[in-house]
Amino acid sequence: ARQTIEQVEEGHRLAPKFDHDGLISCITTDHASGEVLMLGYMNAEALQKTIETGEAHYWSRSRQMLWHKGATSGLVQKIVEMRVDDDQDAIWIRVNVAGSGASCHVGYRSCFYRRVPVATELSQGSRLIFTEDHKTFDPKEVYGDAENPTIL
Amino acid sequence: ARQTIEQVEEGHRLAPKFDHDGLISCITTDHASGEVLMLGYMNAEALQKTIETGEAHYWSRSRQMLWHKGATSGLVQKIVEMRVDDDQDAIWIRVNVAGSGASCHVGYRSCFYRRVPVATELSQGSRLIFTEDHKTFDPKEVYGDAENPTIL
Repeated sequence: ARQTIEQVEEGHRLAPKFDHDGLISCITTDHASGEVLMLGYMNAEALQKTIETGEAHYWSRSRQMLWHKGATSGLVQKIVEMRVDDDQDAIWIRVNVAGSGASCHVGYRSCFYRRVPVATELSQGSRLIFTEDHKTFDPKEVYGDAENPTIL
Repeated sequence: ARQTIEQVEEGHRLAPKFDHDGLISCITTDHASGEVLMLGYMNAEALQKTIETGEAHYWSRSRQMLWHKGATSGLVQKIVEMRVDDDQDAIWIRVNVAGSGASCHVGYRSCFYRRVPVATELSQGSRLIFTEDHKTFDPKEVYGDAENPTIL
């Protein structure tokens, strides 16, 4: 399916490149705010289901299973637009999130809720700065005893 | 450095998780438009240099070397804000791009210059739709004989 660089970069046919684990990276942004909500991973089945249904499906690396985002929490991600990058090894989806609009298992809206000081900002110290001041839900209430997906 | 889930998710210290190739994913968006420009990868040195200098450095997987973005093309990416995600295995940088503002080696502004039809859009066919109608530069002029980074 991936025969020439020109076909992959300039063609009109989706020819995704999955990595050695069979996954492709997916950047998910909020359609309204443009904020990056999460970076997820899709296997071929998750990508296919996302395209067919218009709702984000990922491969959960921690649980090793297909993951229809929002199936547990209700925070389904409806695709407004899907894009693919030049060499077709990354997907970008712009979504509207159902319910409270959160996408992060910790309870924040975005997974990227901490700022990293860089360059001249370092004169104020290198501590991470929280950009969201409250959680949109209580993870214990929503997920109960399910294992935390963060891997040390 | 990564001792507890609470420290990684709720702490104030940067404790990045690099994958088995020693890399962390970096989502790069345009500060003004919010558009996703590229998905890159940083090793520890690239992340450190990005933080110190405030200019995006990546690890080039195709060339297997540290890559100061814009060193060849002049299209340097100045960091406006850096974020890290919940489990600290992904970075998000919001940048201002020097020169023409392009970030894609094919010549487009964003690497994500093609839309993938999903769900009801598929009734119009599954062909990828170009979202940029012209290249901002001629890759041959800028990169000359350098090897194309796209890997089949």
